[in-house]
Amino acid sequence: MSTQPSKSLETFPNPTPQRDFTIHMEIPEFTCLCPKTGQPDFATLILDYIPDQLCVELKSLKLYMWSFRDEGAFHEAVTNRILDDLVLATQPRFMRLTAKFYVRGGVFTTVIAEHRKQGWQQLPPVTLVEVSSQASTRG
Amino acid sequence: MSTQPSKSLETFPNPTPQRDFTIHMEIPEFTCLCPKTGQPDFATLILDYIPDQLCVELKSLKLYMWSFRDEGAFHEAVTNRILDDLVLATQPRFMRLTAKFYVRGGVFTTVIAEHRKQGWQQLPPVTLVEVSSQASTRG
Amino acid sequence: MSTQPSKSLETFPNPTPQRDFTIHMEIPEFTCLCPKTGQPDFATLILDYIPDQLCVELKSLKLYMWSFRDEGAFHEAVTNRILDDLVLATQPRFMRLTAKFYVRGGVFTTVIAEHRKQGWQQLPPVTLVEVSSQASTRG
Amino acid sequence: MSTQPSKSLETFPNPTPQRDFTIHMEIPEFTCLCPKTGQPDFATLILDYIPDQLCVELKSLKLYMWSFRDEGAFHEAVTNRILDDLVLATQPRFMRLTAKFYVRGGVFTTVIAEHRKQGWQQLPPVTLVEVSSQASTRG
Amino acid sequence: MSTQPSKSLETFPNPTPQRDFTIHMEIPEFTCLCPKTGQPDFATLILDYIPDQLCVELKSLKLYMWSFRDEGAFHEAVTNRILDDLVLATQPRFMRLTAKFYVRGGVFTTVIAEHRKQGWQQLPPVTLVEVSSQASTRG
Amino acid sequence: MSTQPSKSLETFPNPTPQRDFTIHMEIPEFTCLCPKTGQPDFATLILDYIPDQLCVELKSLKLYMWSFRDEGAFHEAVTNRILDDLVLATQPRFMRLTAKFYVRGGVFTTVIAEHRKQGWQQLPPVTLVEVSSQASTRG
Amino acid sequence: MSTQPSKSLETFPNPTPQRDFTIHMEIPEFTCLCPKTGQPDFATLILDYIPDQLCVELKSLKLYMWSFRDEGAFHEAVTNRILDDLVLATQPRFMRLTAKFYVRGGVFTTVIAEHRKQGWQQLPPVTLVEVSSQASTRG
Amino acid sequence: MSTQPSKSLETFPNPTPQRDFTIHMEIPEFTCLCPKTGQPDFATLILDYIPDQLCVELKSLKLYMWSFRDEGAFHEAVTNRILDDLVLATQPRFMRLTAKFYVRGGVFTTVIAEHRKQGWQQLPPVTLVEVSSQASTRG
Amino acid sequence: MSTQPSKSLETFPNPTPQRDFTIHMEIPEFTCLCPKTGQPDFATLILDYIPDQLCVELKSLKLYMWSFRDEGAFHEAVTNRILDDLVLATQPRFMRLTAKFYVRGGVFTTVIAEHRKQGWQQLPPVTLVEVSSQASTRG
Amino acid sequence: MSTQPSKSLETFPNPTPQRDFTIHMEIPEFTCLCPKTGQPDFATLILDYIPDQLCVELKSLKLYMWSFRDEGAFHEAVTNRILDDLVLATQPRFMRLTAKFYVRGGVFTTVIAEHRKQGWQQLPPVTLVEVSSQASTRG
Ligand SMILES: [Ca+2]
Ligand SMILES: [Ca+2]
Ligand SMILES: [Ca+2]
Ligand SMILES: [Ca+2]
Ligand SMILES: [Ca+2]
Ligand SMILES: [Ca+2]
Ligand SMILES: [Ca+2]
Ligand SMILES: [Ca+2]
Ligand SMILES: [Ca+2]
Ligand SMILES: [Ca+2]
Ligand SMILES: [Ca+2]
Ligand SMILES: [Ca+2]
Ligand SMILES: [Ca+2]
Ligand SMILES: [Ca+2]
Ligand SMILES: [Ca+2]
Ligand SMILES: [Ca+2]
Repeated sequence: MSTQPSKSLETFPNPTPQRDFTIHMEIPEFTCLCPKTGQPDFATLILDYIPDQLCVELKSLKLYMWSFRDEGAFHEAVTNRILDDLVLATQPRFMRLTAKFYVRGGVFTTVIAEHRKQGWQQLPPVTLVEVSSQASTRG
Repeated sequence: MSTQPSKSLETFPNPTPQRDFTIHMEIPEFTCLCPKTGQPDFATLILDYIPDQLCVELKSLKLYMWSFRDEGAFHEAVTNRILDDLVLATQPRFMRLTAKFYVRGGVFTTVIAEHRKQGWQQLPPVTLVEVSSQASTRG
Repeated sequence: MSTQPSKSLETFPNPTPQRDFTIHMEIPEFTCLCPKTGQPDFATLILDYIPDQLCVELKSLKLYMWSFRDEGAFHEAVTNRILDDLVLATQPRFMRLTAKFYVRGGVFTTVIAEHRKQGWQQLPPVTLVEVSSQASTRG
Repeated sequence: MSTQPSKSLETFPNPTPQRDFTIHMEIPEFTCLCPKTGQPDFATLILDYIPDQLCVELKSLKLYMWSFRDEGAFHEAVTNRILDDLVLATQPRFMRLTAKFYVRGGVFTTVIAEHRKQGWQQLPPVTLVEVSSQASTRG
Repeated sequence: MSTQPSKSLETFPNPTPQRDFTIHMEIPEFTCLCPKTGQPDFATLILDYIPDQLCVELKSLKLYMWSFRDEGAFHEAVTNRILDDLVLATQPRFMRLTAKFYVRGGVFTTVIAEHRKQGWQQLPPVTLVEVSSQASTRG
Repeated sequence: MSTQPSKSLETFPNPTPQRDFTIHMEIPEFTCLCPKTGQPDFATLILDYIPDQLCVELKSLKLYMWSFRDEGAFHEAVTNRILDDLVLATQPRFMRLTAKFYVRGGVFTTVIAEHRKQGWQQLPPVTLVEVSSQASTRG
Repeated sequence: MSTQPSKSLETFPNPTPQRDFTIHMEIPEFTCLCPKTGQPDFATLILDYIPDQLCVELKSLKLYMWSFRDEGAFHEAVTNRILDDLVLATQPRFMRLTAKFYVRGGVFTTVIAEHRKQGWQQLPPVTLVEVSSQASTRG
Repeated sequence: MSTQPSKSLETFPNPTPQRDFTIHMEIPEFTCLCPKTGQPDFATLILDYIPDQLCVELKSLKLYMWSFRDEGAFHEAVTNRILDDLVLATQPRFMRLTAKFYVRGGVFTTVIAEHRKQGWQQLPPVTLVEVSSQASTRG
Repeated sequence: MSTQPSKSLETFPNPTPQRDFTIHMEIPEFTCLCPKTGQPDFATLILDYIPDQLCVELKSLKLYMWSFRDEGAFHEAVTNRILDDLVLATQPRFMRLTAKFYVRGGVFTTVIAEHRKQGWQQLPPVTLVEVSSQASTRG
Repeated sequence: MSTQPSKSLETFPNPTPQRDFTIHMEIPEFTCLCPKTGQPDFATLILDYIPDQLCVELKSLKLYMWSFRDEGAFHEAVTNRILDDLVLATQPRFMRLTAKFYVRGGVFTTVIAEHRKQGWQQLPPVTLVEVSSQASTRG
């Protein structure tokens, strides 16, 4: 695998396709350019997905994110575009992308977009009592 | 576009109207005047919306907020009025405005108002297990 | 309006009765007396309501809270009593009062009570993805 | 009332039985003995209940908790046993007990158990927009 | 019981099988090896389950976690595998495993997987108003 | 000892007068009246002292604080007055009183005053590397 | 006293001039205009001073801060100017002003300036062990 | 070594006596009895010491702390007594004990006491710029 | 002034050179390239300085930081280089640069470097009691 | 360079030896074995040093830390040993190692050790007013 920025997203087979399970990824090092001013924008991306037959490979995900470094991109459009690319590569049962952009003009913007596989339905969720994590655990 | 305070809100076309997605904006620099005493009030506004054909333009939103700087405004009325103006400009599928006012008389007040487009219905939400963000990420 | 403690609660007309919207108030300076020992008790009150035709006036709310300063009051009873008084004054569509009392005997107690207007029904809530507020915003 | 540890739980009449309201108590000073090793265990207990005709009296609750100080108790069993005792004493419409035990062997354990009165049903909950408390309020 | 790492999970009888109750465990000291590079990976595991006839014994759980110290394991696969082993040992009514892995390549990954016993259904959950814990309690 | 508010402060003999040691007390339930408006003011007091022959008794300290409940008191004056009373009662080697008043007119005020016994000198302090407390410990 | 914005700062006599004590004030509602762009700037001011014969009156301080609302002011200059005005009005033994401005161009700026009365010297400070405040106290 | 509570403190030789280094221990599970009322008191102890020839053994320290479980002890006296016992056992170059007691009567008390070996002097401390720990590290 | 990345740093005259005051700037949007791998690195820069005759202009500082976006730079070298450039441009009495780099290989690195003007000496600092900021203030 | 665990520490020349500057590193992924029980121990290491002619290379530092994974090591001894190895490799002007170990037997232990080069003296530190980082910056 290259270590150059790249728009291609590699995948590997889901090890447990018989079960709906969730993969949550936080990518705090996203930067692109403002298409109006050419100045850098910064964001933290949060990706949640329920894989079907494929999972996204971590290193190629990182290089994919890197590939936006020199591209102009509006907040709303780039979030939907990354979601589209990830959906195309992994064909997930469910995927949600949250992009938290850094402050511009005194305003903080976050964009959230989702994809659901045709015909997929979430199992009725089991709602446990919310227990705050013990403060000394790392999670 | 001017850099003067202005009640006009500019928009741009939704880049992905085929998908219900959410735009979340935090505007911590809102100030207006108390209509009773003339003294300054301060608030943080939080705007969540699901656009239909139009998105609100960031810079005009900022100038719009600035335009309240010299106006008298009751907490409950100004929150509903800003929501009305944003709905009129963008005709969103859904919009919620949360206005957190700073303490007055030892009491903190927050006002929350919503608009839903006639006939629009939210997709049944997918409820993921809540994972607290990793503490060292910026978002 | 007086600046004396008072059990009378003043109101003003809801500026937007055509819409169900929420007013959230935090009142951290509540104190009364323990009816058993006569010693002071302290609490933070949190009031959430969806007004119908009337909103509670901020200053009279503060004077109302002050009026408990020299009264004996059990935790469970005073919470329900304040809710009753606020409901009587404003006839809201919905009202919830949360009273968080300070530690007594090594135990922290919170009492939560609600009122719903006869026949009122909440619109099915729109469940947005929860985005933690940006840490540098004041709200 | 004694000030000795005691398994007896005293009650008082619910001041507002006509309304389903919630009492939330946090008891950070629970300690018992590990039945295997005899060494002390520590926990924070969180009690939530909707009273029917009776409320649990605060001081007797504290003495009841104290009574476990010299008893051996497994995490899972003692949580269910305390819930049983509280249910027997107060016959609540709903009760939930959360016991957060301190770390043992590098593992933090929390046990959560609930009781519901036969035939009782919760009113459909009103879901307000979650507003984080103002940081300078004590609650 | 041995104090060597071991894949065998010991159990003890559920003390209150007549009631659906939840056991929540946080295990901040999980480490295994990356199967690609052989370098150590670190994670915090969070286990939630509703036992049926058996509970997992704490010390054997710790030794079980220890047994992964020298094994190569992909994030997605090891989370599902640990869930499988715990389900096999305890046959729970419900079990959820959350594995929060430490940052790799600037990306934080968390994997969440669940098991539900055939035919088991959660009681409709009682939704209490969320009261943030008092900050000075240890939980 | 009475359980009435009282300006008298009781003491007990310092158990270890041969050593300079520090007693730190936090008193979050102080309230008095504003001498201008008559309205209640609230504060958290923090008391640090190095006792000489006498320590202040906890319950009388609480009753002393209670005695200000119905008195008018300016922030700057009442802090210095309480310090004077505590110095008179205990004749400490060193005493510092910090009074953090709740917000008034949008401004938070804290007053800090100190007393040093004639001729007393602090030992040169040993400066340890500051280690943040482990998050799951209660302190 | 007026309730109009005003550059005049009123004072009252220090109630305890025989003692060096500290007054700490936090003023989170400061706003002025950027002299380059005319757009609003926001800051939190923190004022620490050791009074000599005069203390600054709270309400006039608030009106003084309000008086900058329509004035253009550079960060570095306005901080030093406010310090000069406060020093002129109160002639303190020591005064420090910290102005934390809100983000501009992705940069957060804070300016800190001090004044010391000619010939005044701080008593050698007593360095107590730093004890973090108990989390449930309001201060 | 026994696993019974015990007042005897075991030691082991300092592995690096040629260097002044610091051992910091946090002991969140201390409980004793109030000598006035017989009711349980709880505290978190923080121990900092610079060993000379001996270090305190961890398990015996835990059993030592356990030995106070059934003893009456005033806050000020027990802190000084534990310091004395630890000094006697380990003869350290420097030792500081901080005991943070849980709230009683609405007041939080912390007691801090130190011992210095005759003739020992701290090296002039090197003061590094304080860098807050990265939030995702466990320490 | 251009809006292109640039190594030139513009200045403006210090408005109050007669006083040693401090300017503190936080720049969370710094990114450069790893000279070994070519991959992006991210850092937050914190700049503290006491100006002499010149202050650094905010917008040129931002463009200066932007100019590193496509340059390779080792952590230790780039921190010292930026400090050198800022010192050359502003000739400050004192300047400290703290660069907190994002995690690489599981290690978080921060570099801190200082410059002092020949012959400049800090006034003996006045050490005020540290009062934690009120949580609801924005600073 | 190998990617195997290794006790050898590689260095590179200090890019700015003419200046005393500080490198701060946080290493949250340290694990070794308890020499008594053979069970894994976990710690976060914090390294602060002022380099002389050599800096420690990041990757070799990581492999060095990895080399303790299968070794038995007492808390106090391993901290001093790692400091000795780092001092031998880099001959720094100053070095401090802080090792925060995870809870054992209910006690959290941290060990802090320092080395100073013969004849090196810290410049008198410049003490700036402590300004808490802006909450939305990543550092
Ligand atoms: Ca946001
Ligand atoms: Ca952690
Ligand atoms: Ca609020
Ligand atoms: Ca939540
Ligand atoms: Ca509570
Ligand atoms: Ca837990
Ligand atoms: Ca995660
Ligand atoms: Ca929540
Ligand atoms: Ca304050
Ligand atoms: Ca705690
Ligand atoms: Ca700042
Ligand atoms: Ca304390
Ligand atoms: Ca500090
Ligand atoms: Ca760092
Ligand atoms: Ca500090
Ligand atoms: Ca520690």
